[in-house]
Amino acid sequence: MDKIASLKDLVEDLGFAQVDHAREIRQGFPEVVYSAGKTKEQLLAILKSLHAKSNGNLIASRASKDQFEFVLKDLPDAKYSEEARMIYFDRDQTCVRDPSRMILIMTAGTSDIPVAEEARLTAYLYGNHVESCYDCGVAGIHRLLGKLDLIERANVIVVIAGMEGALASVVGGLTARPVIAVPTSIGYGASFNGIAALLSMLNSCAAGVSVVNIDNGFGAGVLASKINKTNLKE
Amino acid sequence: MDKIASLKDLVEDLGFAQVDHAREIRQGFPEVVYSAGKTKEQLLAILKSLHAKSNGNLIASRASKDQFEFVLKDLPDAKYSEEARMIYFDRDQTCVRDPSRMILIMTAGTSDIPVAEEARLTAYLYGNHVESCYDCGVAGIHRLLGKLDLIERANVIVVIAGMEGALASVVGGLTARPVIAVPTSIGYGASFNGIAALLSMLNSCAAGVSVVNIDNGFGAGVLASKINKTNLKE
Amino acid sequence: MDKIASLKDLVEDLGFAQVDHAREIRQGFPEVVYSAGKTKEQLLAILKSLHAKSNGNLIASRASKDQFEFVLKDLPDAKYSEEARMIYFDRDQTCVRDPSRMILIMTAGTSDIPVAEEARLTAYLYGNHVESCYDCGVAGIHRLLGKLDLIERANVIVVIAGMEGALASVVGGLTARPVIAVPTSIGYGASFNGIAALLSMLNSCAAGVSVVNIDNGFGAGVLASKINKTNLKE
Amino acid sequence: MDKIASLKDLVEDLGFAQVDHAREIRQGFPEVVYSAGKTKEQLLAILKSLHAKSNGNLIASRASKDQFEFVLKDLPDAKYSEEARMIYFDRDQTCVRDPSRMILIMTAGTSDIPVAEEARLTAYLYGNHVESCYDCGVAGIHRLLGKLDLIERANVIVVIAGMEGALASVVGGLTARPVIAVPTSIGYGASFNGIAALLSMLNSCAAGVSVVNIDNGFGAGVLASKINKTNLKE
Amino acid sequence: MDKIASLKDLVEDLGFAQVDHAREIRQGFPEVVYSAGKTKEQLLAILKSLHAKSNGNLIASRASKDQFEFVLKDLPDAKYSEEARMIYFDRDQTCVRDPSRMILIMTAGTSDIPVAEEARLTAYLYGNHVESCYDCGVAGIHRLLGKLDLIERANVIVVIAGMEGALASVVGGLTARPVIAVPTSIGYGASFNGIAALLSMLNSCAAGVSVVNIDNGFGAGVLASKINKTNLKE
Amino acid sequence: MDKIASLKDLVEDLGFAQVDHAREIRQGFPEVVYSAGKTKEQLLAILKSLHAKSNGNLIASRASKDQFEFVLKDLPDAKYSEEARMIYFDRDQTCVRDPSRMILIMTAGTSDIPVAEEARLTAYLYGNHVESCYDCGVAGIHRLLGKLDLIERANVIVVIAGMEGALASVVGGLTARPVIAVPTSIGYGASFNGIAALLSMLNSCAAGVSVVNIDNGFGAGVLASKINKTNLKE
Amino acid sequence: MDKIASLKDLVEDLGFAQVDHAREIRQGFPEVVYSAGKTKEQLLAILKSLHAKSNGNLIASRASKDQFEFVLKDLPDAKYSEEARMIYFDRDQTCVRDPSRMILIMTAGTSDIPVAEEARLTAYLYGNHVESCYDCGVAGIHRLLGKLDLIERANVIVVIAGMEGALASVVGGLTARPVIAVPTSIGYGASFNGIAALLSMLNSCAAGVSVVNIDNGFGAGVLASKINKTNLKE
Amino acid sequence: MDKIASLKDLVEDLGFAQVDHAREIRQGFPEVVYSAGKTKEQLLAILKSLHAKSNGNLIASRASKDQFEFVLKDLPDAKYSEEARMIYFDRDQTCVRDPSRMILIMTAGTSDIPVAEEARLTAYLYGNHVESCYDCGVAGIHRLLGKLDLIERANVIVVIAGMEGALASVVGGLTARPVIAVPTSIGYGASFNGIAALLSMLNSCAAGVSVVNIDNGFGAGVLASKINKTNLKE
Repeated sequence: MDKIASLKDLVEDLGFAQVDHAREIRQGFPEVVYSAGKTKEQLLAILKSLHAKSNGNLIASRASKDQFEFVLKDLPDAKYSEEARMIYFDRDQTCVRDPSRMILIMTAGTSDIPVAEEARLTAYLYGNHVESCYDCGVAGIHRLLGKLDLIERANVIVVIAGMEGALASVVGGLTARPVIAVPTSIGYGASFNGIAALLSMLNSCAAGVSVVNIDNGFGAGVLASKINKTNLKE
Repeated sequence: MDKIASLKDLVEDLGFAQVDHAREIRQGFPEVVYSAGKTKEQLLAILKSLHAKSNGNLIASRASKDQFEFVLKDLPDAKYSEEARMIYFDRDQTCVRDPSRMILIMTAGTSDIPVAEEARLTAYLYGNHVESCYDCGVAGIHRLLGKLDLIERANVIVVIAGMEGALASVVGGLTARPVIAVPTSIGYGASFNGIAALLSMLNSCAAGVSVVNIDNGFGAGVLASKINKTNLKE
Repeated sequence: MDKIASLKDLVEDLGFAQVDHAREIRQGFPEVVYSAGKTKEQLLAILKSLHAKSNGNLIASRASKDQFEFVLKDLPDAKYSEEARMIYFDRDQTCVRDPSRMILIMTAGTSDIPVAEEARLTAYLYGNHVESCYDCGVAGIHRLLGKLDLIERANVIVVIAGMEGALASVVGGLTARPVIAVPTSIGYGASFNGIAALLSMLNSCAAGVSVVNIDNGFGAGVLASKINKTNLKE
Repeated sequence: MDKIASLKDLVEDLGFAQVDHAREIRQGFPEVVYSAGKTKEQLLAILKSLHAKSNGNLIASRASKDQFEFVLKDLPDAKYSEEARMIYFDRDQTCVRDPSRMILIMTAGTSDIPVAEEARLTAYLYGNHVESCYDCGVAGIHRLLGKLDLIERANVIVVIAGMEGALASVVGGLTARPVIAVPTSIGYGASFNGIAALLSMLNSCAAGVSVVNIDNGFGAGVLASKINKTNLKE
Repeated sequence: MDKIASLKDLVEDLGFAQVDHAREIRQGFPEVVYSAGKTKEQLLAILKSLHAKSNGNLIASRASKDQFEFVLKDLPDAKYSEEARMIYFDRDQTCVRDPSRMILIMTAGTSDIPVAEEARLTAYLYGNHVESCYDCGVAGIHRLLGKLDLIERANVIVVIAGMEGALASVVGGLTARPVIAVPTSIGYGASFNGIAALLSMLNSCAAGVSVVNIDNGFGAGVLASKINKTNLKE
Repeated sequence: MDKIASLKDLVEDLGFAQVDHAREIRQGFPEVVYSAGKTKEQLLAILKSLHAKSNGNLIASRASKDQFEFVLKDLPDAKYSEEARMIYFDRDQTCVRDPSRMILIMTAGTSDIPVAEEARLTAYLYGNHVESCYDCGVAGIHRLLGKLDLIERANVIVVIAGMEGALASVVGGLTARPVIAVPTSIGYGASFNGIAALLSMLNSCAAGVSVVNIDNGFGAGVLASKINKTNLKE
Repeated sequence: MDKIASLKDLVEDLGFAQVDHAREIRQGFPEVVYSAGKTKEQLLAILKSLHAKSNGNLIASRASKDQFEFVLKDLPDAKYSEEARMIYFDRDQTCVRDPSRMILIMTAGTSDIPVAEEARLTAYLYGNHVESCYDCGVAGIHRLLGKLDLIERANVIVVIAGMEGALASVVGGLTARPVIAVPTSIGYGASFNGIAALLSMLNSCAAGVSVVNIDNGFGAGVLASKINKTNLKE
Repeated sequence: MDKIASLKDLVEDLGFAQVDHAREIRQGFPEVVYSAGKTKEQLLAILKSLHAKSNGNLIASRASKDQFEFVLKDLPDAKYSEEARMIYFDRDQTCVRDPSRMILIMTAGTSDIPVAEEARLTAYLYGNHVESCYDCGVAGIHRLLGKLDLIERANVIVVIAGMEGALASVVGGLTARPVIAVPTSIGYGASFNGIAALLSMLNSCAAGVSVVNIDNGFGAGVLASKINKTNLKE
């Protein structure tokens, strides 16, 4: 608890934000900024604060192109993935992305790719070796069965699907590795913006499947990385 | 419309029920009685009326054992399936159950069998050849793939599943035949008594899948029979 | 299962999509593209791949006019139905649209017509004889009763309705043929974008009615075609 | 407002209940007691208070048989309808039940009858001429069309239905009189204890249909009576 | 039933619409057109058909200004209420709007007025004497109590409220007349676009209150008129 | 933060429970035990631990009679309110229940009394002067208006109501004091076990109304006490 | 009740609004105008009426910049907070903002600040001393623990959070003062526009936490002020 | 894919069940039986089949005591945990439960312990070293902070909580290890049997938290074990 107490001094008070420079110490990666609902000025100020105090990779998730362009003026090493809606700084040269601990990102359809890219880019920036396999949903099961070798090589699997989200259950039954299921808002009508896929994944008949929020590619990427680095102390 | 008008005379008014003896003429099978919420006396009176005016098979769905025993005293040829919760009269000797037009009833798990039995018995009483294949859910896809020949032989397929209901999508992708999906209330927590499976099936990424109410084995059996008899006029 | 294994080689990997050329073999119609959430470039690439490998009719559902115009530049035989939001290629000269196996598309109101056109065009492209009857909802039951002859001639009926969706139950009680009910998002307030009609149809007191997703005219068209072609092997 | 102020003195304070003897003056019928959640002792005390201060008919709705038997000991003119779950006192000899202002109670099925009986008994005790017509749901539309004369004679119509509740829309389209729709909890699965019927009735495509709470036969009976007595001052 | 059959001939088939000229005969007012989801051309064609075959007042509800201007070119006696979003033709000179049968339209707040105007204009066009009283919600109960005389004079009361919709219960307790409650989508957060008010009104502790769809001023106006004309045959 | 750290030593670890003896220091009242889901043995052990270490009043909420009788054997000064489902120890002789800071507990109906008693007893044990006024719902507004003096005397008001919960809004508009609204599960059908009242109260048009969980009389009692003791340091 | 009656004369009838000049007498602050859904002209007329009859501070909540600019022309002392979406008149020179009765406004994140500003400005205009502390959510608990002194000094605490809203429970456990929790619509996917935070706060395991509507900073500010002024009569 | 094909032969067809002896090969642990909805006879037959073909530990989850006693007669080495509702066979002597890869099971309250025990026992039977820490919810944050050392030692953390489920977010912010959140149905009213906790956990502001179904202790135990064994191939 003294440790917690000491962390207080690592918080920088910007008035509208308490920037947590302790995050990197506690969790091995700097604080990530959730950009939605923040003004351009607020976002820039927080990123500048993090940029100055850390040498690690940085992420501002759910950022608009407009926010990016505003940030870029003051922080010229910022990069942007329009598909993943992510501003990022890829500057940590110390990452060792070990292919023997591969994270596999799968999608059921092409329309799920933006969420997948958010997951892929996050896991990459957190220092992992990532591979992907998009559009292999269960309506044509042979498409999936053609990827069995890839599935077998993975250490952690992220399965991203909208509509009925059945891919998570099928993959969960094919692997002994942990599966992180990400429901997406792809679909219409009774998909209810991802609720159908969310419920489907929560009720997966395959054990060992857990779920993150709808469209939460970022969270899946972080969790995959955390799992991938479990046991590393040994 | 004269035809409709003439049907009026085939309705028998019991006060608490308008027994529709015209159903057999219009739809080829006598009126089916929904037993839930009816007193034993009401149920018996309706069945006696149908029994007297038709020689066809009769069905009282969602009937309790208690209701059955009361009915049996007056109508000794009544039979009861406890699993399917169905009172029935299997007395139509004219049925030709053509194996080349096979209806296949599949379930994802063992716990879905009561709903499956309701579907199976209904389709049988409507005069169809029915086969079944239980507990072949997607968590072990090889269990399903081992049934490909059976799936290929079917003319219509009824897929019954609770939890995430993924079986409907996978089967829907494997066959060119119509698939009737029946969500069941098997599951717990966020299965919400079958809502998860219902939404999953409504959003199936495989085209050609349609859905009936949660636990509605009876409706699936009727529809499968109607589909199976389509084109018979030719 | 060897059959399934062999299908793998018919999948074309575009990176963002696994185009399934096996669909036509398994299901008798080429893979259909769900256009929502795809970029123009992705859509075109998939359609070109399908166009090159098959001579059948092709469908890209839920496509915008913008997507169509982009596709048209490279694939000049593409057509577009703005009402049905569908890009299609009507080039299969071998279709025999048998009027004795008529699919009937009905709507409760005029506002439901776009969904109906999606169903109608799909069933047509799948090689069926289709007729339609729009705006015959139950608030004036004589409008429906005036169509009894049409209903009687149909082999399969698709009933499309928003608001309270009562038309499905009434039609379901008038016919011995299978009824596919399509709830639409037409309505306001407690229609909840089609939930009221969806629940209504799932609880239809007429047996033999099944339901597809809200506004899913495409799925209804495919299913109607699959039902219509059941028993054709005989 | 002086009038309101003067009503205060007509309230009898029992501690656990404020018995409103002013109700009869304001609304023409003594206060009705909602029995669910009240102890037998509370219910009896309230009824004794009303019984002593009024000569009108009295109603305790949603009462158990157990509550009735306890009440009966002290108030021997109490009566009980088990079907309608209602304790009542039918002692107003001044009622003129005018057949030319007939209230018609209709149900879609036999299982809806308990709710209908609550409506019927309520409207009767409020001094109306009531007729009924049970089990005429839309799955066999000729059953309903056979009742057109009855529908035409009604001054107000109460339509009671569970499952998809389509009867309200069809009757609403057949009459120029006001229709009160009562959804019931009859059904299973996606009927969600009456939600499907409730939504269906709220979205009725027939204008002039309004809705009361699920299973609220009592409320429908009161409203039908209020409508029936509108214009009586002229 | 012969009557129903004869109505068929009064239906005009426009292809996209079955215009029901029988409505005026059955219900005393020409068919009303729901404009949402219809093209300008469809709307005009339907209105022209009704305009030609009837001399009564006409209503096209939920119409945009754009639709109105298109209609106006061909039907110069069309009028438009932007607040009520209604195109109408006020041409029936035979209406006797009897002040002794007054319909009262009340709202809880100023923001509910558009729905109220739809109800008011509808009831007016149906030939009723209508008065209104806006912004008398329960947060300042003296505002409501100041309107007691008005409430007492009414024959039917329409109560329109968003947020928690409590006004319906309070008015329901003050009057012996029927109350039609209209929930509106006014509010935010947990009002869920009118669901809070809808549920509140359905559960009103005052008997004699019924409910129509969220924002359905039109339906409330029609029902109020139907109630107001009940008993007129005597 | 040293303060927080020091509190750790005041936690007693029973294995299945971490009894928080620091609660009394931080919040002025010993930890309250939520009894639902605990075994009799667990409940007793926790109460014994609290009983030994504090001289204050103690509360075990949502306790069954069975749990009480088990506790009573070892802790003979335990008391039980069956209505409030509460085991309690009323032993703090130092309470000064100041009538000039009166907490008023109101209910809309008689059936809401159990929740009210939980609130009343809680506030009493926390050392407040409490008065109550039950069954003064809005359907007869004169019942409420007859209590204006009582309302005016209150320092904090707890309003408890099921069904449509309108009482909270009306009271909120009558007082300048804070109102705590407690929705109850009293009602049926579309009350959805208290959801209707909950939403109604959250959307109250009267400002200054806040809401606790459905049936949470205990929470309302604690909050009323906390509010009542605000400013006491002055 | 004479008092209530006398208030009627303080209502100014603008036709579209009943302006309640009695509010200031009953509740100590002039009526507040909810601007959403009102036209510019309506809003101005109401504000002019209030402005003329009171010398207190005035608030028009949920106002657009457009509405403000229209108001400003006629009422040049109007001010506007774009963040809080509030038009206000800060002209009451008699307010004594007592720092010993401090209201603390806390947010979990930066994106919650607009709601917080609405609460802060409201409480300020109602005459309170307000302090704030933004972006101290629980994901880094040391940020919160660094604010313990501030929390301890507060008389009432408003906790504003979106996503999972956990901050309310943690703060509720740290203080003996009342906590008003405000869920915000910040989040995505299964936050369902604030439902997740709302439910979380309603189920807080810390007693003494109550909840207002999603994004209802205004209501929280009023309630905090009402609580803060409780006991002032002593 | 040949591998998949070969697995087919490892399926034992019991008619009502397809026992999957391949599970152990694919996933390292025999098939687990979901007991709910199965008859005693079905459960026994499946367990006997698994018992005969494997030497590993066996689990039948969600089993009643009644089912256990029936199983015990034929399989005398069966054990039963009433708290975890689990029949199990603890016979694998080869497990090495490595304390340096500790799985920590935490609960917010005492009432959550049954779910925790299901998770704990599952993870133990899968061959892991498991520790636990119960009743350390956030309402008294010092209880949690007193467990920081334990949290720091864990390799994977399972957080189990009902009500508002805030513990998952707080723990997620304190650790760099993966957190599996299990919502429980503990609570009442607006906890909606675990929905509040489920939504809360899905929206956790701490990244690296994933969620399983409500009350799914078993799934959490399996997933924790899978994560714990990730990287073991190195």
